[in-house]
Amino acid sequence: VKKLKAAILGATGTVGQRFIQMLHEHPWFEVSDLMGKTSAGRRYGEAVNWLWSPEVPEEIRGIEVKPSKPRNLDSNIVFSAIPADEARTVEPSFAEAGFPVVSNASAHRMDPTVPLIIPEVNSGHLGLIDGQREGKGWDGFIVTNPNCSAINLALVLKPIHDLLTIEKVIVTTMQAVSGAGYPGVPSLSITDNVIPFIEREEEKMVTETRKILGRLEGGRVIEASFPIAASCNRVPTIDGHLESVYIDAEGEVDIEGVKEALRNFRGRPQDLGLPSAPADPIIVREEMDRPQTRLDRMGGTVPGMSVSVGRLRHGVDDDSLQITLIGHNTIRGAAGTAVLIGELLLAEKLIGGG
Amino acid sequence: VKKLKAAILGATGTVGQRFIQMLHEHPWFEVSDLMGKTSAGRRYGEAVNWLWSPEVPEEIRGIEVKPSKPRNLDSNIVFSAIPADEARTVEPSFAEAGFPVVSNASAHRMDPTVPLIIPEVNSGHLGLIDGQREGKGWDGFIVTNPNCSAINLALVLKPIHDLLTIEKVIVTTMQAVSGAGYPGVPSLSITDNVIPFIEREEEKMVTETRKILGRLEGGRVIEASFPIAASCNRVPTIDGHLESVYIDAEGEVDIEGVKEALRNFRGRPQDLGLPSAPADPIIVREEMDRPQTRLDRMGGTVPGMSVSVGRLRHGVDDDSLQITLIGHNTIRGAAGTAVLIGELLLAEKLIGGG
Amino acid sequence: VKKLKAAILGATGTVGQRFIQMLHEHPWFEVSDLMGKTSAGRRYGEAVNWLWSPEVPEEIRGIEVKPSKPRNLDSNIVFSAIPADEARTVEPSFAEAGFPVVSNASAHRMDPTVPLIIPEVNSGHLGLIDGQREGKGWDGFIVTNPNCSAINLALVLKPIHDLLTIEKVIVTTMQAVSGAGYPGVPSLSITDNVIPFIEREEEKMVTETRKILGRLEGGRVIEASFPIAASCNRVPTIDGHLESVYIDAEGEVDIEGVKEALRNFRGRPQDLGLPSAPADPIIVREEMDRPQTRLDRMGGTVPGMSVSVGRLRHGVDDDSLQITLIGHNTIRGAAGTAVLIGELLLAEKLIGGG
Amino acid sequence: VKKLKAAILGATGTVGQRFIQMLHEHPWFEVSDLMGKTSAGRRYGEAVNWLWSPEVPEEIRGIEVKPSKPRNLDSNIVFSAIPADEARTVEPSFAEAGFPVVSNASAHRMDPTVPLIIPEVNSGHLGLIDGQREGKGWDGFIVTNPNCSAINLALVLKPIHDLLTIEKVIVTTMQAVSGAGYPGVPSLSITDNVIPFIEREEEKMVTETRKILGRLEGGRVIEASFPIAASCNRVPTIDGHLESVYIDAEGEVDIEGVKEALRNFRGRPQDLGLPSAPADPIIVREEMDRPQTRLDRMGGTVPGMSVSVGRLRHGVDDDSLQITLIGHNTIRGAAGTAVLIGELLLAEKLIGGG
Repeated sequence: VKKLKAAILGATGTVGQRFIQMLHEHPWFEVSDLMGKTSAGRRYGEAVNWLWSPEVPEEIRGIEVKPSKPRNLDSNIVFSAIPADEARTVEPSFAEAGFPVVSNASAHRMDPTVPLIIPEVNSGHLGLIDGQREGKGWDGFIVTNPNCSAINLALVLKPIHDLLTIEKVIVTTMQAVSGAGYPGVPSLSITDNVIPFIEREEEKMVTETRKILGRLEGGRVIEASFPIAASCNRVPTIDGHLESVYIDAEGEVDIEGVKEALRNFRGRPQDLGLPSAPADPIIVREEMDRPQTRLDRMGGTVPGMSVSVGRLRHGVDDDSLQITLIGHNTIRGAAGTAVLIGELLLAEKLIGGG
Repeated sequence: VKKLKAAILGATGTVGQRFIQMLHEHPWFEVSDLMGKTSAGRRYGEAVNWLWSPEVPEEIRGIEVKPSKPRNLDSNIVFSAIPADEARTVEPSFAEAGFPVVSNASAHRMDPTVPLIIPEVNSGHLGLIDGQREGKGWDGFIVTNPNCSAINLALVLKPIHDLLTIEKVIVTTMQAVSGAGYPGVPSLSITDNVIPFIEREEEKMVTETRKILGRLEGGRVIEASFPIAASCNRVPTIDGHLESVYIDAEGEVDIEGVKEALRNFRGRPQDLGLPSAPADPIIVREEMDRPQTRLDRMGGTVPGMSVSVGRLRHGVDDDSLQITLIGHNTIRGAAGTAVLIGELLLAEKLIGGG
Repeated sequence: VKKLKAAILGATGTVGQRFIQMLHEHPWFEVSDLMGKTSAGRRYGEAVNWLWSPEVPEEIRGIEVKPSKPRNLDSNIVFSAIPADEARTVEPSFAEAGFPVVSNASAHRMDPTVPLIIPEVNSGHLGLIDGQREGKGWDGFIVTNPNCSAINLALVLKPIHDLLTIEKVIVTTMQAVSGAGYPGVPSLSITDNVIPFIEREEEKMVTETRKILGRLEGGRVIEASFPIAASCNRVPTIDGHLESVYIDAEGEVDIEGVKEALRNFRGRPQDLGLPSAPADPIIVREEMDRPQTRLDRMGGTVPGMSVSVGRLRHGVDDDSLQITLIGHNTIRGAAGTAVLIGELLLAEKLIGGG
Repeated sequence: VKKLKAAILGATGTVGQRFIQMLHEHPWFEVSDLMGKTSAGRRYGEAVNWLWSPEVPEEIRGIEVKPSKPRNLDSNIVFSAIPADEARTVEPSFAEAGFPVVSNASAHRMDPTVPLIIPEVNSGHLGLIDGQREGKGWDGFIVTNPNCSAINLALVLKPIHDLLTIEKVIVTTMQAVSGAGYPGVPSLSITDNVIPFIEREEEKMVTETRKILGRLEGGRVIEASFPIAASCNRVPTIDGHLESVYIDAEGEVDIEGVKEALRNFRGRPQDLGLPSAPADPIIVREEMDRPQTRLDRMGGTVPGMSVSVGRLRHGVDDDSLQITLIGHNTIRGAAGTAVLIGELLLAEKLIGGG
């Protein structure tokens, strides 16, 4: 079958690079266009500061980066990894021009007409698209994936939220430097250090998680009602955001029951057999000292697409639950979830070829 | 005046090395004896794997390490940095032989007759000593300093506990590798990694903090009653334990009032002008991204003896408080607090010369 | 076709773990037996401190580790990753019992009857085996792979040695912590540090490189005659040994000619199409700032089996050459080369099934 | 006595911060003016991204940063830590206006009329100043300190150069990230990595070292004639440049004799008792695994002002010498040497008050 043409906005950044890694041999998509602001006009292989091993794929290296404009673009879907500021105007210009845009940018995530999707958690929120098109008068549309720390958290909270009544969530993160992009965090700032602040991250974890776990009703998302407090810290790791989560629940928490719910959790991507869907969205570890950032960030049958959890135990009383979780911030936490959204859109016939 | 003779048990370990740094030019104490298990019989300069800059002090280098036995020891005070297992029998042997022992080991911390002291917080608990001596039939006694993570936490909780009614404390730590001693954490385990587990650390943070903040009544300590839940993580930093703390309080928390209480907090060491007492036991930072491990671990007029706090804000509601704190784990969190206890004992005439 | 049974000595160590990664889905070999000293009697999954992602392969996890003894062993080849001290007696006991042993241990590398092999460089040295068997009276034999730093160096020197007359080699290494095994280098020793000494490493680089580049004549290896001086440093990286090499040559060095020789270099494994042979044993980088440890250690069509070189330029005069090279220390530098030797032995019919 | 007023150009950068640390309680100088390009008009405490512990000195914090212009400046000496590009025009403007400028910038180092000084090595090169003033028609003058890696190397080569005939020097460096300033090296680029290239560093090590070790003759410096080849690498350390040096000499090298020469080496600063002069400019270590970056970078009676050497041994033959050395790149390698030059200028009456 013919693959769909996928364009990438912001192709040279850290998340843009992950898009290329996930799309260049994708069974359903092929990379058709690379767009960038400062890199436009240059060959990708020359414009990019490629940070990973293996190398830039051979067939991508020679592609000329285009400016971030919809004109003359011949693609079936646009994946966006541009900064929020830029996304505010650039992404709507593509949606208006008829393109489905799957965006990793935060600009439109909290727009009530824009689905904020983790395919395993709230694929039903894609129901917002019709209203969005109508309201904005767009031929295309915008769907977003959540913030990297919010994705990991919401994915793990979903089966717990279904199992018991969450009263309050308190989360402390230990986030990798790749989350800040490139050049991002100076080595002089983070070597042998922890920085207890990441701009706007805590707000995103709170608001986005509640939208993701909300329910679609009457054409809009009613947010989950439990409060969340977050403390976000930068630690000297390359990839992987580890989170220490404390949950107050109504009534006693059955630890083994929670583990079972997490282990058995499957979503629409698993039902549909989407190519980037890991067999287990959540991996439960029983070892005392797992999950660990370096050992578990690439977890899952699709590496980096599963979130690993461990150290499940009660908190100060039996009505509480403590969990440590780790997810890959630029795969499950960004490009991977966006690609999974793209696959979902195709499987649900919300996008298509020719 | 004549200095008191101080012996060090476990002198070659990471905490033992800090004892030497803090005692070798101390105005009240002089290092008289170094004791160790595997290093006995060798010159200190040859036996030690000294991890710091500057070098082993010249006058210490040539001292012959003795076995950990009280016999023939001519010292006024013994500082102990031996492992818990060893401490269980070795420290009592010194106390029985008449020596005041100030210990960093966890072995006797939760013994109801043993004071667990942060001099600024609960110097009054030294009142347990008489009962201890009587009960054990010892000429000497044992006083302990708390676990490195518990010291930082309890020191900061003290003025908050005095100001408002704490209902619950949830703490997530990001601890440096020096906390595990030497050789301790293998580099292969912690480079580019976070390990979400430190053996027995969480239990110590809970039980010790409540004992420290308890009140002495009728010859015993009535523990503070609020519950604590801890999640302890090892991160790739050399020194300094950073803690993200969430406090549920009864009634509204006035953030500025808390800051003022922390800023103004002074204890007995400041009143007595003890040599190792920092002017401000707690330093309040107003910057969005402080305190940081590398920048703030050596905080205080006596470097490493002040705990720095920042990011004070409400949690999910106005009845809650979030704080980030950082303290030096082997100075304020171990040897520094032990030396301060020694100074307090002398100032309070609980130990003396000749 | 039926796979050959491969046993692994020292299966739980860092190199042993790499053996498992390279052998568990190997087209010619299957892991039949795992042996270890302290882990004997336990299931591999429980005995090992697995340091990598992905996990221990499922089919390996449940294998019971056996003691390091040849009795009752039913294998066609034994790969050894045991320490040198142990290897001195253990490996001969397997060779005597009739097993072909491919060893990563240093114990027998400099034995004049033992081939020290990099398959691309000196496969002909396998000609020593007959004499070895005869001399020792063994049914089996021992073949060794070189030290991790020597492999990288010798592989790159080979085409240069063929192209021009080397007068002197001066090399400074920057080696990863995995080279010291586990627990190996304490994090307290190497965080934010460089340690300019690795025990016995410099001697190995000198003597082994000259043996590898020697020629087989009259049943023995005549070592290459040029002198080598090495300075070995430990740096805070996980995997990959980077080397800065300075070569004095007889006559002018044509930089482009050297690059071409390196780029075109192929050996017996490439001719034979061995499964673990990378298409290019040496990858030549033209960028100013390559090769880099993290970006290039997994280089090659078989990841980690190619050595990357760059920054080729003259030294103080035109008769000299400077090169920076990087190779993966536990893949090309250990287990990978050993497996490649195993494949070579099979292809050359020096080992076989039933 | 009255202190001389010292102005700092580029006061907010990493080297500028070291100038402040070394000057703010200096016995001969007082910080009078802070100048900067982007920070002009703001209080220093707000403009600076202070990277060190302890904090910005209290009395410095409130100083308003001025633009980098000589007009109205009332200082006796100007220390410059501005980038080379800027220095090309800015520093001459100060010299022309009558100020003595001691610069860490590379812009004028190789100007034949500008002294390139390590006070212990070539204080006599200050003899160039008269000619410089005359030639340029300046009331003031410019003196420079060398590149951070060149300083360490030249300081150690000096007594060796005096002792024996150096034929060739080959050096490989392992340099800390602070050498690249702030923000400098991105953490994504250097975590778990070595980068084998630092722009223009190798050329500086070669040319500057030869100028420093040259002799003043007839009003100009005749450079040392031995050739040098350098390979510069960035490693994940915060401070301290470690160098692995190989020296070919004419005739046999007596290792013990070299050690003695290094140990006994003293220069003009030691003779004059300059405040920032360490008792021993070079510290010789006898341990197998020293000097190390983290343990030895702050070596010396004036911390960070001594270079530590170790591992002295022959190379491929007795006519060669291998040394490992480490020096602090922003103290001895930059601000510290500049301040020492300032002290030397005052002691030699080349600058003065009123």
